[in-house]
Amino acid sequence: MADNVVYVGNKPPMSYVLAVITLFNEGNKTVILKARGKAISTAVDVCELTRNRFLSELEVKEIKTGTEELPRREGGTINTSTIEITLSK
Amino acid sequence: MADNVVYVGNKPPMSYVLAVITLFNEGNKTVILKARGKAISTAVDVCELTRNRFLSELEVKEIKTGTEELPRREGGTINTSTIEITLSK
Repeated sequence: MADNVVYVGNKPPMSYVLAVITLFNEGNKTVILKARGKAISTAVDVCELTRNRFLSELEVKEIKTGTEELPRREGGTINTSTIEITLSK
Repeated sequence: MADNVVYVGNKPPMSYVLAVITLFNEGNKTVILKARGKAISTAVDVCELTRNRFLSELEVKEIKTGTEELPRREGGTINTSTIEITLSK
């Protein structure tokens, strides 16, 4: 796990916004938001909230989408979409 | 409404995948997926499904995020995140 990555899951967006702000305050020049499945919408919310309310100088450097195979409890795999949003100062 | 735009909402991803394929078959060189709120995850699913299963030569040319103010039934406005994914042949 790289230390400038925030994994976005099911918590409210603000908890991830705080994580992003903390990482920038610790001196990181870039912070990467990673999410998959339904949490992708939350990752975009975190990106927008951080830029509009807290760190207006932030730039969205890159957005990549992808597909991951996750194992299913019943056996086999299921494909899930992923997103990686790179924010930079 | 531009005619190469697919607005992604609450339907199953495959209905939007079919819309994207149709627009490319009609001769469009680029197709733009637009979504907001929870449908953002579906838009990424549509992008990934189209590329992985149907049109492997497709390129994700640009992904932009934004914020829109929507009116609330109770009055006032609420901010919603948006995404625009530009696919090109």
